[in-house]
Amino acid sequence: MRTLYTINQMKQKVKEWKRQGLTIGFVPTMGYLHEGHASLIRKASSECDRVVVSTFVNPIQFGPNEDLDKYPRDQERDEEVCIKNGADVMFFPSVLEMYGEDRKTTVSVIGLTAGLCGAKRPGHFDGVTTILTKLFNIITPKKAYFGEKDIQQLMVVKKMVKDLNMDVKIIGCPIVREEDGLAKSSRNKYLNQEERKAALVLSKSLNKAREYIINNKNKEILATEVKEIIAKEISTEDLAKIDYIEIVDKENIAEVNMIKDEILVAIAVYIGKIRLIDNFIL
Amino acid sequence: MRTLYTINQMKQKVKEWKRQGLTIGFVPTMGYLHEGHASLIRKASSECDRVVVSTFVNPIQFGPNEDLDKYPRDQERDEEVCIKNGADVMFFPSVLEMYGEDRKTTVSVIGLTAGLCGAKRPGHFDGVTTILTKLFNIITPKKAYFGEKDIQQLMVVKKMVKDLNMDVKIIGCPIVREEDGLAKSSRNKYLNQEERKAALVLSKSLNKAREYIINNKNKEILATEVKEIIAKEISTEDLAKIDYIEIVDKENIAEVNMIKDEILVAIAVYIGKIRLIDNFIL
Repeated sequence: MRTLYTINQMKQKVKEWKRQGLTIGFVPTMGYLHEGHASLIRKASSECDRVVVSTFVNPIQFGPNEDLDKYPRDQERDEEVCIKNGADVMFFPSVLEMYGEDRKTTVSVIGLTAGLCGAKRPGHFDGVTTILTKLFNIITPKKAYFGEKDIQQLMVVKKMVKDLNMDVKIIGCPIVREEDGLAKSSRNKYLNQEERKAALVLSKSLNKAREYIINNKNKEILATEVKEIIAKEISTEDLAKIDYIEIVDKENIAEVNMIKDEILVAIAVYIGKIRLIDNFIL
Repeated sequence: MRTLYTINQMKQKVKEWKRQGLTIGFVPTMGYLHEGHASLIRKASSECDRVVVSTFVNPIQFGPNEDLDKYPRDQERDEEVCIKNGADVMFFPSVLEMYGEDRKTTVSVIGLTAGLCGAKRPGHFDGVTTILTKLFNIITPKKAYFGEKDIQQLMVVKKMVKDLNMDVKIIGCPIVREEDGLAKSSRNKYLNQEERKAALVLSKSLNKAREYIINNKNKEILATEVKEIIAKEISTEDLAKIDYIEIVDKENIAEVNMIKDEILVAIAVYIGKIRLIDNFIL
């Protein structure tokens, strides 16, 4: 496993692999890798000849009041995770290397980014789609792997790839959870013991919602009923503050009034100062 | 020479060429090919193993009050020009084929598009950069050829390619002119005999400006002096109405106050209802 720091080094390596007819799998991350990322790397490694993991903390997907400076970083640990799970290259460029001093170009997916996290984090998804376009162009992967925890990101990226005729297959992979149910996230590291316990309310509330829907599958269910069940469960936790609870169409992220097949139930909850997300698809 | 109508056909052809190790040159156009385009095709043909010419009239780069429906089209003639000048494929997809029914993604270059044509045609360059991103992804050219008549387009595309790490070299080619000096343009076709004569005022006014600058190269020259010379010349023509006269830095398209090296003098002029552009670089 090699860590590469410049675009030219990365391009050179890709050229070498292409000459040998090897396929490239790509796992884009912001580093501080956890078991969720590891599962993506293993899947890429099982499906592609070579695997690149990028660990670039992308400043343009953070808002002015978000946690860019505090975002956790640990290169050595990331390299270990990459090695252990079968990555061939960790791509770890600097911000200057990626954006230069005079970036003017943005890739935007409009429509899918209006609700959920897009509404709460204006500009966030433009940052995601712009960096991914750059990384796809540099790495030219056959397949790129994304976790379903960031479900809106996954949907946005799929739409971008289709709309722009990019030659990469986007693979969504199931959420990886702690034993007690909390979705794995680099941000979990910020939680103190008390908050860590409180954070369980996300998965618990979603489980209750899912059970309710399944138990009433022969009746008409209003989206508001389900949202109330989630809100009620979250309200039992003093440290938790709801950012959003949304139930939307799985394809176009439009709000639904009635529960039906192919919906996405997504929540964002502050535990103390830490914003966590979770979701399930029905 | 083959004309291909679908993205899949085009991708298939590209795959075939790539397998044979052939390089691809690309000339993106909106069809109604003239000698300016022909010169680009010949240059591509001299530098690359295979040449693709796209002739897609791109609706999203036209404004609501612009001439999309009236834009001239002539497939047969375009195919002749392609054959005669060494193209291997003319790519001629429908609007539905290119954009589907639910396009949500846009590529934008901000900053370079604020002045000149960008100011007069809001959204125009987003349309250009979005379609070119798609075409580059489909055709994967080694080099793409653009005329210097659409100088702002050329600068915007170069910036996009750099910012997004696209693996294509952008080649600018000199303006091709009629014998009397009028820059070749598909829109020239709209001019009646009287207007055709009046249209000469564009190149004439630019020639006067260039002469003035060269004759006074040892003095300080204000941009406003040069603009006045151009405006005065254009005002001699009753059918001509100035859209803009701009003198900007060649690199960042920022307005300059004093004439210096590396400037771009660009004009847009209505001749009757037809908007024509011309420019020179110093």
